[in-house]
Order: sequence, then structure tokens, then C-alpha cells
Amino acid sequence: MLHKKDWENTFDKKVLPPKGMRDFLPNEKKLREDMMTIIRKEYRKNGFNEIETSFIESIKRLENSDGGENTELLFRILRREDNLNLADGEATDLTDLGLRFDLTLPLCRFYSRYQTMLPKIFKSIQIGNVFRAEKPRAGRYNSFIQCDIDIIGDATNMAEIELINTVSRVFIKLGVKGFTIKLNDRRILQALVEYAGFPKEAYMDVILTLDKLDKRGKDGVVEELVAKGFDQQHIDTFMSTLELLEIGGLAKVAELDLSVEGAKNVRDIISVFDSPSNEFAIIYDPTVARGMGYYTGTVFEITYQGIGNSLAGGGRYDQLINRVSNLEMPACGFSIGFERVADLLKSQDCSFKKERRLAVLMACEENRKSLIEDTNLLKENYDVVSIYKQDEDMDAQLQVLKEQGYNYYTSYCDMIKIKPIE
Amino acid sequence: MLHKKDWENTFDKKVLPPKGMRDFLPNEKKLREDMMTIIRKEYRKNGFNEIETSFIESIKRLENSDGGENTELLFRILRREDNLNLADGEATDLTDLGLRFDLTLPLCRFYSRYQTMLPKIFKSIQIGNVFRAEKPRAGRYNSFIQCDIDIIGDATNMAEIELINTVSRVFIKLGVKGFTIKLNDRRILQALVEYAGFPKEAYMDVILTLDKLDKRGKDGVVEELVAKGFDQQHIDTFMSTLELLEIGGLAKVAELDLSVEGAKNVRDIISVFDSPSNEFAIIYDPTVARGMGYYTGTVFEITYQGIGNSLAGGGRYDQLINRVSNLEMPACGFSIGFERVADLLKSQDCSFKKERRLAVLMACEENRKSLIEDTNLLKENYDVVSIYKQDEDMDAQLQVLKEQGYNYYTSYCDMIKIKPIE
Repeated sequence: MLHKKDWENTFDKKVLPPKGMRDFLPNEKKLREDMMTIIRKEYRKNGFNEIETSFIESIKRLENSDGGENTELLFRILRREDNLNLADGEATDLTDLGLRFDLTLPLCRFYSRYQTMLPKIFKSIQIGNVFRAEKPRAGRYNSFIQCDIDIIGDATNMAEIELINTVSRVFIKLGVKGFTIKLNDRRILQALVEYAGFPKEAYMDVILTLDKLDKRGKDGVVEELVAKGFDQQHIDTFMSTLELLEIGGLAKVAELDLSVEGAKNVRDIISVFDSPSNEFAIIYDPTVARGMGYYTGTVFEITYQGIGNSLAGGGRYDQLINRVSNLEMPACGFSIGFERVADLLKSQDCSFKKERRLAVLMACEENRKSLIEDTNLLKENYDVVSIYKQDEDMDAQLQVLKEQGYNYYTSYCDMIKIKPIE
Repeated sequence: MLHKKDWENTFDKKVLPPKGMRDFLPNEKKLREDMMTIIRKEYRKNGFNEIETSFIESIKRLENSDGGENTELLFRILRREDNLNLADGEATDLTDLGLRFDLTLPLCRFYSRYQTMLPKIFKSIQIGNVFRAEKPRAGRYNSFIQCDIDIIGDATNMAEIELINTVSRVFIKLGVKGFTIKLNDRRILQALVEYAGFPKEAYMDVILTLDKLDKRGKDGVVEELVAKGFDQQHIDTFMSTLELLEIGGLAKVAELDLSVEGAKNVRDIISVFDSPSNEFAIIYDPTVARGMGYYTGTVFEITYQGIGNSLAGGGRYDQLINRVSNLEMPACGFSIGFERVADLLKSQDCSFKKERRLAVLMACEENRKSLIEDTNLLKENYDVVSIYKQDEDMDAQLQVLKEQGYNYYTSYCDMIKIKPIE
């Protein structure tokens, strides 16, 4: 016989989703769908068009992308042949497909496929789940939603300006105010790496370490650079110059002659949005690096007081489409971290729209034809009309209905008298 | 050197999604999202609450479900260990997870997990992708959307009535009129199988063959029953009785004493909806069987003139939750085959809402701050406001914008004069 604890363990396992995966109860799902509707509508209002790419991509394409450490977090799908030759093969031979880990690689494939059918400057929306086999921990899930907009075909920073304008409008519509948009340019970072004395080819390695500053602090960054075997002198110069830039801003970038184009680019973009009436701040932040290898110019993220991780991030990736299909095509994108924003709004107990919810209580089982016809008419005037059997203890039932968000009720024998649930 | 044809093949492969998977261009994606909005809103209006379950489930749970042939169409996910012991293992040992093939099994798991937090009668919505590794062919995809509603906890046929009322309202809102709802009851089918002389245990085998009537015709069904080794006499009686039922309807069911409860159930449901003012027909169809093993009572589907496959289907499955978690709980569900409805609406060139789309053409690169501020104001009055660089040949540009659905434009030097695109 099983002990109770053992039995509960069995039971739990049987009804839980796999580790790192989630189910959503109605209240949370409602918040998520409302968020998605707002994001989708505002993206679209700003001239972007939604596309959809498949959840599943060829494993080779995923492995050979420039996805940084994401390529080590793949969910690989077993080939569907009857007789897989296991004894001979390596793990990679057993799989031909994998789940996408972001929406940017599929977008580049999509654009390469359909370029001739798309506008010269293509402004795309992609909203959907991506999958990463990370060790699950608080705030990190193995399946999560990204909400991306991208502009392909515009080499000018009008692309950055439109992306930033659109995403900031979305945040305001979501009720997230007082956020900060932080800008940097990979060309400034590259010049800084060289200025500090690092060898040219160390650039990406240094940048990817700098990206961890949020989580590990300056000491953590220094530690990792030391561990990577870089010269202490170069590391010291790098960190102290970063501090100079944090104080001196773009003027200091110019003074040190780090990257004229990079500095002009960042200044241009900030000047468009820098206004006292704005509901957000926009600043140059020399420590913003972003963790993907493929960025070539502007990089940006949105931060919010008290939240360690950024709520959105993106940048310019002018060489990525080229890598998929030998098509030289400038591109720039911005991605909202849907889960972090959802967690934030959930913690603020946010709900977007109060619904008029009517419960129709059946007092008898008779005359269901007119019950259905009459409730259908009521659906014109209420957001929700739901039929329930009337319980003997109607007070208790109304209490439960109230907890489910119902604010009106009627008994079916008495359809005309609709009463509020107090 | 590659021949052109070879080169094209290489190129195509690189930019195509995997076989059976799809990408969606903006126009088609817009139709799909509009459909989804209508379905979601109407489901909710009728008192159902949306939940979400994970795309990925434990492989054991998927394999041990009552999913019929779907369990042979699983996408299996390789374990994420560094050293998989390939030489020893069988394919099943290599995988721990799989992609869900429907939304019903995850719902039963979800309900078993959260039962204490859910209303006594739980009316759920689930909308999402499911995955089946079928040989891709026209109209069959390896990843597709299902839109399910289910009522858990109601043993009466008010559940069937609410499901049918809701789904028929959705079809009318989608502009699909003149459809037919076909009802049957598994208890009538079971009695019919016994009446024909088949052994009792042959029931499910005969039903699953009957489900193929749409596609294979009566001869095909007889052929498969013969191939399965059933007695010719039993097969003949079965087919001829089916024909009697097709002519005589529920009266014939009663006359042959096939299933009193089944016949009453079907008659009850039809009587609620049978009205000359209805925009759809509702009938008893003795050949409706449904292909899942788990149905226990009412089964139904929606058909539409000229389309071989049903557009929606469902039924009562009172024993399925029991199988997941030893919880006796009546349940009934209805699922819209989103892809088939989308294909139908696409073929009818349907579009749900005409948008006011304004293109703002930048004549110069200057003054982008006020460009952004001014276009943001215009967003209050248009569904879409998108900025483009003004081309030298503006007539040609307006033509292209018109093709993209823009119906208004303005030049940035002349923001006040907004003109229609003729």
C-alpha cells in the first residue's frame, strides 16, 4: 500500500505539466489575452503587419544560426522513421527538427523566402511562443511568448525611431509608465574594446561578458574577463573608460574619438524623443550590450524601476539575413519580453476592462428552447451571459458567482428582472 | 558548378519551413487573427473562460491516452542529457517529452490539477496549436490550430445544448451560414452494432470504420469491415439497418428499440434548435461516429455544402478525466477545425473589417521630432498610420500603397491635407 505522501507525489506528477512548462488559470489567461490584444492592435496601428512562422524549424538551421548560447538550449525532435539506427548514430543524427528559440531567425528565413512578395520596406509583427531548454528557475520558463516588431530594408535610423516610438506607445497603453529606454551602439562598444587595448578579435567575447553587468555587477564582469584570460591592464582601462562614459555621456564618446557614427546615431534618436512631456525617459547607456552575436549598430532596451531584467530589447542586425540567404538587407528589431511584462502587471493586480457579466439561473429544466432564445437576445447587452442551474441556497451561489466576476443575475422564471449581484 | 535547377533547390530548401509546416503572409495572417478574435470573443460571451495548457506534455501521458491513431503521430522530443546512451536504448528511452496532438487530453490533466480552484461546472476555452506527424497532404498540416470549448461537471444535456448554441453563434458571426449540425449518440451506435449481430467487443472497431464513411463511401466501409474479418451477414445487416435509420430517423431508432436514452437525448437537443428562423439546420444523422475512442454519448459535427470534411466536431466523454486522475466527472466538448474554416473563408475572399489606413510620406529627412509627434496624433483617427519615405515617382508609390490596403496618404510637408488614394 502506498503512503499518503507517495500517493500525492504520484498524483501530482500525473497532473502537472512537464518541468519549466506552465498552465494558466482563467484570470491569468484573461490578463495575458488582454495584453496580447493591446500589443497586437498598437503594433498594427503603427504600420506593422503580422506574419506567422512555424514553431518547428530544421535542426541544422537552428544549430548554424548566430543565436549565441540559445543554440545549446534546443529542444530536438526525434526523426519519425520506424527504424532509427541507434547503435551507429550520434544524437544529432537522430533529430531533423527542433523548436524555435527566438522569432528573429524564422523572420530572416521568411523574408528570404517571400522577399519579392513583400514591400520594399517591410515592417513585420511576430507574436508567439519560443522554446529554450534552460534549467527552470524563477522568472525563466522553457516556453514563453515574445512580441517582436522588425523593419527590414531601411538602412537609416528612421527604423530605430519607428520601433522605439511604437514600443513606447505599447507600454503606455499597457499602463506601464515611467520606464527608461537605454540606447547604445555596437560601433561605440567595438571602438571602446579596441581603445582599451584588447585584440580586435576579442570584441564579441568582451561584449557578451559586458551584457551580464545587470545580473553580476562590475566585479562579476571583471572576474569573467579575467577568467577568459584577458590582460589585466586592458580590463582595467575598459572598466574605467566605461565609468567615464557613464558620467560624460556622448560628449565623452566624442572626446575619446570612439565612434563618430555611433555617437551621432544615438544622439539623433534621443533628440526625437527627448521632451519634458514624455511619459518615459530615453538615455545613452554605455553599458547596454545585448547578448546576441548578430547586432551591428544601435542596441536598446527598456528598463523599469525595481526590475532587474529589461522588459524589452532589440537592435540593428544588418548582416543576419545575408547569413540565411546571401541577401544583403539592413534590418532592425525590437522585442517585448511578454512574460516579464505579464509578471509586472500581475503583481500590480492590473485588469484592463470591467466586463458586464450576467448569470442566468435556471430554476427548472423545462422550456429550454425559450431559455436559449431569450439568453441569446441578452447577449447583445452583456459581455458575458452564462447559464447555470439555480442552487437551493441561492445566496451562497451568488457569492460564488461574484467571485467569478459576475455582476448581474436573473432567475429564469423571472427573466425581465435583472438584478446586480451585491 | 551547380545547374540553375540545383541551385534553386538548395535555395528553396534553405528558406522553406520544414515539410508539413507553414508560414503565413500578412493578408492571410490578418484573416486568421480576425477569425480568432471573433471566436474568442463569442466563446467568452457565452460564459466560457479561456485557459492555456503547455504545448509540451510528458511522452508517457501522450502515449497512454485514448487518442486513437494520434498516438502514432507523435513528435517526440529528445532528452536534454549530455550523454544519451544510444547503443543500449530504444527510441522511446531517448525521449521524455512530446508535442500535444489535441487539446482534450491537456484539458483533462489541467482539470485534474486545478479542480478545487475551478467552478463546480467549468466551462473552458482552449485555442492553440496542436501537432501531428502525418504525411503532409492537401488540407492536412503537421501543425494546426484547434478552438475548443468544453463543459466539465454537467451530466445533463444542457452541456450539449450550450456547446451547440455557442458554436453555431460563432459560425454565424464568422459569416458561415447555411451549415448543418449532425447529431448522433454512441449509445444508439452501440445498440446498432449489437442489433446487427457483431460481438459486443467489436463495437469500437466497427465505429472507427464507420467514421470513415465521409471519405471512403459505403463500399469503403464494407470493404474495411470485411478486411477486419467480420461476418458478412453482420456487415450486411449493419449497413441495411443504417439505411433504414437514414430514412426513418429517430422514429426508426425507437421502432427497432436501439437505445431509448440515446434517441431521447438526440430528440431533446434537436427540439431546442429546430426553428424555421434558424440560420442553420440541425438533424439526426445515424452515420456520424467521430474517430476518438473516448466518446460515451452524444456525438456531433458541423458540415457545410460542398466540403467533404466536417468544420467542427465533438461529443460527450464522461470517462476520460477518470482515466487521467481517477476522478469521475462528466464532460462534453466541441472543437472548431480552425484550418478548414480558414480555408473556406479564404476561398470566399472574406475580410472582416475595412481599416482606415494612412500612409505618411516623408518628403525630407528633416524634423523627425515633429514628424513623429504629428503622426502620433493622427493615430487617434486612423486604424493604421505608417511612415514611408516619399519616392520620386509618387504615382507609382501610391499604386503600391493601394495594393497594401492604404486608402489615405499625406506628404509630410503638407500634413493637413490628407487625401484619399484613388
